[in-house]
Amino acid sequence: MLQLLRDGRPRTRAALAIETGLARSTVRSRLDALLDAGLVNDGGNGASTGGRPAGRFVFNARARAVLAADVGATHATVAVTDLTGVPIARDRLDLDIAEGPDVVLGLLAVAWRRLLRRAGLESVRLAGVGIGLPGPVEHSTGRPNNPPIMPSWDGYDVPARVAAELDAPVLVDNEVNLMALGEHATCFPEVEHLIVVKVATGIGSGFISNGVLHRGAVGAAGDLGHILAPHGGDVPCRCGNTGCLEAVASGPAIAAALRARGIEARTSADVVGLVRSGSLEAGQATRQAGRDIGEVLAACVSMFNPSLIVVGGSLALAGEMLLAGVREAIYRRSLPLATQNLRIVVSQAGADAGVLGAAAMVVQHALAPAVLDQQLA
Amino acid sequence: MLQLLRDGRPRTRAALAIETGLARSTVRSRLDALLDAGLVNDGGNGASTGGRPAGRFVFNARARAVLAADVGATHATVAVTDLTGVPIARDRLDLDIAEGPDVVLGLLAVAWRRLLRRAGLESVRLAGVGIGLPGPVEHSTGRPNNPPIMPSWDGYDVPARVAAELDAPVLVDNEVNLMALGEHATCFPEVEHLIVVKVATGIGSGFISNGVLHRGAVGAAGDLGHILAPHGGDVPCRCGNTGCLEAVASGPAIAAALRARGIEARTSADVVGLVRSGSLEAGQATRQAGRDIGEVLAACVSMFNPSLIVVGGSLALAGEMLLAGVREAIYRRSLPLATQNLRIVVSQAGADAGVLGAAAMVVQHALAPAVLDQQLA
Repeated sequence: MLQLLRDGRPRTRAALAIETGLARSTVRSRLDALLDAGLVNDGGNGASTGGRPAGRFVFNARARAVLAADVGATHATVAVTDLTGVPIARDRLDLDIAEGPDVVLGLLAVAWRRLLRRAGLESVRLAGVGIGLPGPVEHSTGRPNNPPIMPSWDGYDVPARVAAELDAPVLVDNEVNLMALGEHATCFPEVEHLIVVKVATGIGSGFISNGVLHRGAVGAAGDLGHILAPHGGDVPCRCGNTGCLEAVASGPAIAAALRARGIEARTSADVVGLVRSGSLEAGQATRQAGRDIGEVLAACVSMFNPSLIVVGGSLALAGEMLLAGVREAIYRRSLPLATQNLRIVVSQAGADAGVLGAAAMVVQHALAPAVLDQQLA
Repeated sequence: MLQLLRDGRPRTRAALAIETGLARSTVRSRLDALLDAGLVNDGGNGASTGGRPAGRFVFNARARAVLAADVGATHATVAVTDLTGVPIARDRLDLDIAEGPDVVLGLLAVAWRRLLRRAGLESVRLAGVGIGLPGPVEHSTGRPNNPPIMPSWDGYDVPARVAAELDAPVLVDNEVNLMALGEHATCFPEVEHLIVVKVATGIGSGFISNGVLHRGAVGAAGDLGHILAPHGGDVPCRCGNTGCLEAVASGPAIAAALRARGIEARTSADVVGLVRSGSLEAGQATRQAGRDIGEVLAACVSMFNPSLIVVGGSLALAGEMLLAGVREAIYRRSLPLATQNLRIVVSQAGADAGVLGAAAMVVQHALAPAVLDQQLA
């Protein structure tokens, strides 16, 4: 019933009974529970049909607040949203993921409280807390699972630590999965099959199948960065293997290739700066990285037949130079059938994709029938 | 309501109202429609609670017949099942897919009528017809989409041709997608994420995400055979590219490698025969094909994080020799996290996987709430 009302249109009890097929008595008792919980408000009177005008009911997205964070290696984006997932207040924090979960999650809690105060939402009940982390996460438990760039987080009970300070369900996922959820929820809700690729210090992806995020058996899906790049050769990767895509096409890998040609560069931002300032070498190296990424994505196109690939992450700021390489390789290596309706675009949600995805994850969870039923019982 | 009853347990009207949350009057009217349609039978009386014993209702899987076919290049398996998807009668036909859709679909119709007669089901209403074809199919329209080994079928309206002879909804899909549905429905219903690989004259795969078949944007998902094999080199492929997995690891590719070493072999069956008779060269070549397949599957494991990979197709009859190569390459190239709970097994449904999947596709469709509602209205 709440799924219907989420479109924002007010409805009478009679309209709800017809649209859901539920008994009048069921509609009445569920509406009472939703009204008690504040999730539905009186929405004024409907058109009179001669007798007493029927009362209408409307979804109250402001009944709960959602706390969201997208945590990277050196900073985090935090936000407070309502039940539509649209940010009411947001902020950006500097941090060092290597300081470990206790320090970092403590910083997030402080930042969220500040945002709640700023937005005047301190007394609003929390629907939940959504956190994206830069490594594999077992979504069902919220514990990082052998995360390479944050080893001190391995197996840490993130939900328990956060719930100790904030009384709300805590959901945790990999940041790239949440980028995919964020792009899907806010920019491409109509697309059934899409892959979101993040190209930055690392390379990862999130993948939506039949409209649903595909997390895989242990939450490790989307690990594009450690697939063998066709031209990866013997380049060693931090994962212990050689020739991984991340070892040849990430921001630091492009920077290393430029240094070998005598051009000073260390980070994705350095590379993007050089490309934007018109450096031929940086442009060539970025386009080659795009080709390497595209060759691996071509395998994903053959396997998944998406209708959309979204390229995000800090290196996506290099724009068309990266995308041209990606497109070139995908179109060369894929069967025409799989690419006939394929769009390849840069991130639309941009730097906010992750935090929007964290909020979308909480909203999806909080308004899921099973969770609602339990809460209203 | 029917979804509940499909478990075979009889229920009273009161039990159905409680379990569905539907109004008593809704339960009564829907049950009447299901009884009229024959989909539900009187299941005797429940335990008396003092008053008049309440009547119970039970799913009638024999109320409809399902026609299924798995069509290959040179033969087809046809079956008649009930609404559980279990075959009541089955047969195998020789055919030549190159004779075109009109001839081949005509042969199927004759075979299905014979099976219906043999099973005494001529008067039972048909739930639908499910057909698997050896090429890409646009599932929503049932039309083959640029199928390489059956060019005369391109864009052909398969459902219209079949429906002209058999009055029932006709669903068409790629045979490997249906192998995946068949393995999932009959052998691994509890597995959420699995990949089924077929290794024979061609190489393809079907994949289940979150328990649902992932067909992709235009039904082209699972096209493993035309992904670049890391050691594919310049070997030309019939698709026009070079180095495709199919060009180095299919049955004919292994046979060609054996001929180059002076050993006569043409088909997958020849290769399997040589392996089984203890040929060292055939064993080595098959294991190498397994490694090539495993290297491409390693990319799929990184992207998709399945908990199960099922290897089927005629070359899977070479057994452990093929699987050992697959396992070796996957474990070498994948991150430990993605393989910690990964099982790699040979097909459990075997040669019947495709036809069982075709039946499962029809049953899923026929009992889907939207389709049922329309039928019962």
